[in-house]
Amino acid sequence: MAGPTIDDVLSLCRRRGFFFPSAEIYGSIAGFYDHGPLGCELRRNIRDAWWRDMVQGRPDVVGMDCSIVTHPQVWHASGHATNFSDPMVDCRESKMRYRADQLFFCPVRSQGRTIAMVSVLEGPAMEEEARDKARAICGRMGLVADGEPLRLRPILDATAEELEKIPSPATGTPGALTAPRDFHLMLETRVGAVADAASLTYLRPETAQGIFVNFGHVVDTARQKIPFGIAQIGRSFRNEITPRNSLFRSREFEQMELEYFIAPDADWRAIHGQWVRDRLAWYSSIGVGQEWLSLEEHAPEKLAHYALACTDIAFRYPFGIQEIEGIAVRGNFDLAQHQNFSGKSLEYFDGERRYLPLAIEPSAGLDRIFLALLCSAYAEDELGGGRRTVLRLHPRLAPIKAGVFPLVKNQPKLVMLAESIAKRLSRHWNVALDSSGAIGRRYRRMDEVGTPFAITVDFQSIDDGTVTLRERDSAEQVRIAVEELVPCLRESINGPD
Amino acid sequence: MAGPTIDDVLSLCRRRGFFFPSAEIYGSIAGFYDHGPLGCELRRNIRDAWWRDMVQGRPDVVGMDCSIVTHPQVWHASGHATNFSDPMVDCRESKMRYRADQLFFCPVRSQGRTIAMVSVLEGPAMEEEARDKARAICGRMGLVADGEPLRLRPILDATAEELEKIPSPATGTPGALTAPRDFHLMLETRVGAVADAASLTYLRPETAQGIFVNFGHVVDTARQKIPFGIAQIGRSFRNEITPRNSLFRSREFEQMELEYFIAPDADWRAIHGQWVRDRLAWYSSIGVGQEWLSLEEHAPEKLAHYALACTDIAFRYPFGIQEIEGIAVRGNFDLAQHQNFSGKSLEYFDGERRYLPLAIEPSAGLDRIFLALLCSAYAEDELGGGRRTVLRLHPRLAPIKAGVFPLVKNQPKLVMLAESIAKRLSRHWNVALDSSGAIGRRYRRMDEVGTPFAITVDFQSIDDGTVTLRERDSAEQVRIAVEELVPCLRESINGPD
Repeated sequence: MAGPTIDDVLSLCRRRGFFFPSAEIYGSIAGFYDHGPLGCELRRNIRDAWWRDMVQGRPDVVGMDCSIVTHPQVWHASGHATNFSDPMVDCRESKMRYRADQLFFCPVRSQGRTIAMVSVLEGPAMEEEARDKARAICGRMGLVADGEPLRLRPILDATAEELEKIPSPATGTPGALTAPRDFHLMLETRVGAVADAASLTYLRPETAQGIFVNFGHVVDTARQKIPFGIAQIGRSFRNEITPRNSLFRSREFEQMELEYFIAPDADWRAIHGQWVRDRLAWYSSIGVGQEWLSLEEHAPEKLAHYALACTDIAFRYPFGIQEIEGIAVRGNFDLAQHQNFSGKSLEYFDGERRYLPLAIEPSAGLDRIFLALLCSAYAEDELGGGRRTVLRLHPRLAPIKAGVFPLVKNQPKLVMLAESIAKRLSRHWNVALDSSGAIGRRYRRMDEVGTPFAITVDFQSIDDGTVTLRERDSAEQVRIAVEELVPCLRESINGPD
Repeated sequence: MAGPTIDDVLSLCRRRGFFFPSAEIYGSIAGFYDHGPLGCELRRNIRDAWWRDMVQGRPDVVGMDCSIVTHPQVWHASGHATNFSDPMVDCRESKMRYRADQLFFCPVRSQGRTIAMVSVLEGPAMEEEARDKARAICGRMGLVADGEPLRLRPILDATAEELEKIPSPATGTPGALTAPRDFHLMLETRVGAVADAASLTYLRPETAQGIFVNFGHVVDTARQKIPFGIAQIGRSFRNEITPRNSLFRSREFEQMELEYFIAPDADWRAIHGQWVRDRLAWYSSIGVGQEWLSLEEHAPEKLAHYALACTDIAFRYPFGIQEIEGIAVRGNFDLAQHQNFSGKSLEYFDGERRYLPLAIEPSAGLDRIFLALLCSAYAEDELGGGRRTVLRLHPRLAPIKAGVFPLVKNQPKLVMLAESIAKRLSRHWNVALDSSGAIGRRYRRMDEVGTPFAITVDFQSIDDGTVTLRERDSAEQVRIAVEELVPCLRESINGPD
């Protein structure tokens, strides 16, 4: 199963207006996007599917909706204000910027002397890449590299002297890289009339902290008993150094996070395992086949200091296998920090004891799921002797649920019946009325954006009140009474009542 | 029809966790709010109702979802970067801040001499208020005010000498007010590694501009012909000087905006009139009675310079009649500005001519509608000899659609049946399972948060598969088969298929 290239997917997104660089007429700012009509609907459907399955469908989860601009103390308590930065290295020539912990270098030696340096970006083939580069340098100089194995070191360990000789991975020019510099990841803003220190605050880099600081309010008002969860969907912001891979790493992104609070003596390993299985099953339920997904358990030494465990759900993007959701056991770190910093008790009273619960956090990136859905749904196949592009999106996720087509457009009776059907369906779903072009072309236009159903109104429809209903993936058509359309589509989209 | 006080409404919101000051454990920042479980659901339902009626249900409207952090040139073109500020006056004693154009003053004269100044805030009774204040001052000094009429002048016209004598409206102390100062309303942030001028940008103060800058993209990809509209729901930010009246004037708020593009020679007056009627009818359709609403047409001299007309829909809040939605005819100002500033054509080609369309903009504030719904739905009445608080929200808007109650909690069969009913309903809606306390108290808890239906599972239910369904407003109960619950609730919530 090869899957599409990222260019296949992005070209479709561009052509059909799923998303664009933000304010593109002004050249945009890297890492920000504007979503067009189809992208906007797909995003809405992802949000709704997550909310329905994670909040509405669970008696033990409630939702929240917190502000983006958040009190600065929240980020001092959470550690973001002090620790949330990455050391970065710039290439002065290309203006490329690299995370210092992902950039490695080593000397190239010939006849016992160091004749040059090579630099490579972290990756599974980085040793091989470094060897190739070293060989090429030696070749150009008419030398032979020494047989000793290359010893790659992180650029964070480079001395000033070494830095002068290390080439930029972008341009190959030695000395083009700056020394590593700390780069803060939160976006700042100032609120109030006077731009002084007191007015400085931040756009949230994650939605989770809004949940923690409101834990006491929810306990007091929402009639939930531990174990229970609080969920939130919303925009977050990180001043990413190198926004890349389109929506995958952007500076403004949307998170879907849940904090599931459990007693300190609960079996967190078992509950965490259950969440990992549930979340993995959820991706199947929205049409992402298991062949696209893998689990990555964080090694204990790679965990954040407050985490007891973390498992990522990773997706096989065309540009590599990357995290779409992390499921961490955060312990009680966040509640304890906010309790300390605010001086307000966040303890939970279960009728017998008071305690700070542990939190298990399934945290998903909406934009990453968006891109994963497009990559896994994209297909090109043969149909009726022609080639077609089709998005095999689950009906729940499809931006348009049905195309409604009058067979010909110059027959007012057909057009009026099609309009009335479209109007009726549009009370429930997003549908598209299309009367222009050959019917085959209209099918293709809907296939390409993942519309699961096409409804054609023909002359028989006027006589007997039936239409043809075509299913996208099989292209099979059945004849169905107009009255049956709503229940039939409803079952396909939502499942049985 | 008196309606509730704002304290009635806010007290309920607090008690049941609709919303809280943002990050309240840290003292919050004025003008930011976090929405708890019920508030979050109510907000979701408002968004969904708007989207369903304004986008999904209309063949001539598509949606967008743009970034909050937006290229600075967008705001230079729109005029926000240069013009979007208000002159403000501070009271040094009370730290109150006033919009300078809403603050008036006049001298108090007795026996031909100026003996003091008075200040008043703009309002229908401001002349009377000034007279009363003048009389009180004279009374305290044992003088009689001259009979001449008071001549109120805006504080913007006050000389430095006069400012020293004008009292603060908050404290009454002469000279406590600062001179008017410009106060910029956009929140700034900086994106990128280096905090230089090039990295300065803004959080959007409105969602509309994201629509205008993407107009060309939508025309190219969305198969819409003029007249058509582009809609967006999203957060916007304004560094409001005086956030007040709870959610009514906050610094982070959510807009629901639509730009409806029409040909330059279209009858914009007629189309504008139709939008005003449609939008007014929409408020009825979500349960806001016409007695709460009024229309306010802007006088030509009060229009923004680019607007051809504007009509506000105003709501009778407990704190005054205030705008919840503005429906403006913006002309082609925005598209023309973006075309000029970007050098990219935004003209529409209709097959014969190229032109910049006019835009009609129904722009609603989600938070204002939220508050309006709570105010208009809030009621206290007598029921079964007791007093109850009830939110008479339309079923579409209600945060919880049904409460499901086992009559007694110590009968496993009842509890299990209730759980299975709740689980089944929760595939479609947000429901609450509640088995604690007397059944009457459970009804009251649901009434108070606007839950339209209460389903009670009793001993008969186990025998014949029926339950009682109680309607919130009438408190009437009918017996209904479990199988009928989904279709019955669906029709009440969504209307007929």
